[in-house]
Amino acid sequence: MGATSASRQTQGVCPDFHAAIELVGKRWTGAIVSALSEGPLRFGQLGKAVPGLSDRLLSQRLRELEDAGVVEREVEPGAPVKVSYSLTEKGADLGPAMSELRAWARRWKRTG
Amino acid sequence: MGATSASRQTQGVCPDFHAAIELVGKRWTGAIVSALSEGPLRFGQLGKAVPGLSDRLLSQRLRELEDAGVVEREVEPGAPVKVSYSLTEKGADLGPAMSELRAWARRWKRTG
Repeated sequence: MGATSASRQTQGVCPDFHAAIELVGKRWTGAIVSALSEGPLRFGQLGKAVPGLSDRLLSQRLRELEDAGVVEREVEPGAPVKVSYSLTEKGADLGPAMSELRAWARRWKRTG
Repeated sequence: MGATSASRQTQGVCPDFHAAIELVGKRWTGAIVSALSEGPLRFGQLGKAVPGLSDRLLSQRLRELEDAGVVEREVEPGAPVKVSYSLTEKGADLGPAMSELRAWARRWKRTG
C-alpha cells in the first residue's frame, strides 16, 4: 500500500474543521439546526420537530448553539411573552453542508 | 413571526439524516474520516493525524466506522503483519459533505 506515505504522518486534522464537525454532530445539534433551516420556531415547536429530545437537553443545546453564534433567541413582545429561535447568518450558512449530509444519508439508506 | 407555521409542528427530522449527522459528528469520527480521505493509513499514522486521541478510543471509533460500513480494515500480508484502514465507497462518498463543512469552518473561523 504505497498510498500510506510517510509525509502524511505529521499532517494533523485542521482544528477549525474538527471543532465544526463536533459542534454540528453533537447529539441533537444537527437535528435542531435542520429543523430551524426553514424558519424560526418556538421552543415547543422545536421540541416536536425533534422527537425524543427532552426539554432540558433542548435548552442546553440551544444555549450551546447561541454561544457558537449559530442560533439566535428572540423574545417577541406581547402578553404572554413568546420566545422564538432562528438561525443566524452563520447558522444558515451551514445549509450546503447539511444538504450534502442529507443526500449522503439518502444514498446509503439501509445499505453498506 | 408568521414564519412559525403550525404545520411544521408535526414534521420530524428525517431519521436517516439524524443517524448520519450523529455518526459523522461523534467525537473524533469526522477527524478520522477526514484523515483517511486521501488514502489508507496504518493505525499509528491515524493516531498521529488526529492528535489528542488515545489508542483505545481510536480503536473503538474505527470499529464503529467499520460497523457503519464507512471504514474497512485490511491486513497486509507479510511479516510483521501490518493493518491498514481505508474508506469504503460509502465512506469516500462522505467527501462532499466533509468539504462543505470544512469550507464553512474556514468562512466562520474566529467570528460569530
